Amino acid sequence: MRHFVEELEQLKTKLLEMAALVESSIQRSISAVTQKDRGAAEEVFRNETSINAIEIDIDDFAINLLALHQPMAADLRLIVAALKINTDLERMGDLAVNIALRALALMEGPMIKPMIDIPHIAGLVQSMVRKSLDAFVRRDADLARSVLASDDAVDSLRTACYHELVSFMEQDTANIQQSLALLSITRNLERIADHSTNIAEDVLFLVKGIDVRHHAELHKQKDAGHG
Amino acid sequence: MRHFVEELEQLKTKLLEMAALVESSIQRSISAVTQKDRGAAEEVFRNETSINAIEIDIDDFAINLLALHQPMAADLRLIVAALKINTDLERMGDLAVNIALRALALMEGPMIKPMIDIPHIAGLVQSMVRKSLDAFVRRDADLARSVLASDDAVDSLRTACYHELVSFMEQDTANIQQSLALLSITRNLERIADHSTNIAEDVLFLVKGIDVRHHAELHKQKDAGHG
Repeated sequence: MRHFVEELEQLKTKLLEMAALVESSIQRSISAVTQKDRGAAEEVFRNETSINAIEIDIDDFAINLLALHQPMAADLRLIVAALKINTDLERMGDLAVNIALRALALMEGPMIKPMIDIPHIAGLVQSMVRKSLDAFVRRDADLARSVLASDDAVDSLRTACYHELVSFMEQDTANIQQSLALLSITRNLERIADHSTNIAEDVLFLVKGIDVRHHAELHKQKDAGHG
Repeated sequence: MRHFVEELEQLKTKLLEMAALVESSIQRSISAVTQKDRGAAEEVFRNETSINAIEIDIDDFAINLLALHQPMAADLRLIVAALKINTDLERMGDLAVNIALRALALMEGPMIKPMIDIPHIAGLVQSMVRKSLDAFVRRDADLARSVLASDDAVDSLRTACYHELVSFMEQDTANIQQSLALLSITRNLERIADHSTNIAEDVLFLVKGIDVRHHAELHKQKDAGHG
């Protein structure tokens, strides 16, 4: 069994390496937007290839652990949570690619509207990602719950941003292309937040053995309108 | 072992019940858009609650099978694939909710542009969903591969639709709100197609034991720009 304990640790280490790469991609994609940093965008594209390879490696490793060790209870929950978190992390990497692509489009012209909201939403989303991963490492249910609570704040910010950008488009058709790019960036940031919520839910399943998914149906339905 | 074989069949049956509900939600959400059918939209909202409950039930059932039967090889792959397909189906239900919400917004006024593209994209996406689920039931690798091939067609259609709607917005600011709703609907349809691609990849993993994810990195990167 000592071997198995080591392999579980290895699974966690692999997942945290994956998480570090995804967090770096998110950070770079935001820098690409806010600093017009073309090199940062290119690093996001490069990272995606590594993230995809690591996703497959982690899945294989986790499935082999299931096949070889017939884990029970908490160990089984850890492996299932790792499989789910792995998928969420890979999708977050894809969303960072979407943001970086939009950043490249925005670099082509001057900004006609100051980006006050984007760094604000981005900061909140990055903090959710960080907390959901810290909650996984420390098996901290309270921290995981705090991530679920932040999701509403991101939704509200994005709804406000949506309305502002739509009226900006309505003022002048020349604003449309840039506003659509900014809308896309906020939408992708919100989807990253949704994935960190998924991770927080997996942490609660892992730590407490309880399923907290769909904890706030009404909220989701209310806010889905700008999806 | 006979017991286990029956339980695996039960897992598949549960997943297909879930799939039927999700397919119905997608169909209803499209009717809500194209027929201005408010009742269809309301059924999508009702379905979501059932879909969420079934998702949790299937996850629990699959994890219990892993815990109790220490499955190997093909059985293990089936259970892992079921866990993944379950997640994809639930997200597809959420996306149908997004579409139904947009449909309600569109019902408030007359259509200023005929919806030629939406039924076209919707038909293609529904056929991908159907094929990915048929491929799962029949363990048909060729059918699963045909789903992967269709993904590019959906991406191209959506890109064309995107450019058309943007120029429509640029012609007259009065078109902006409706165009944004239509853009959102096509984006959500494309995300449903992405999930059916995930299911097709899981079927290939199940049938062949091979991992075909990230088979077309360049395509994804190219098309992610309107995400």
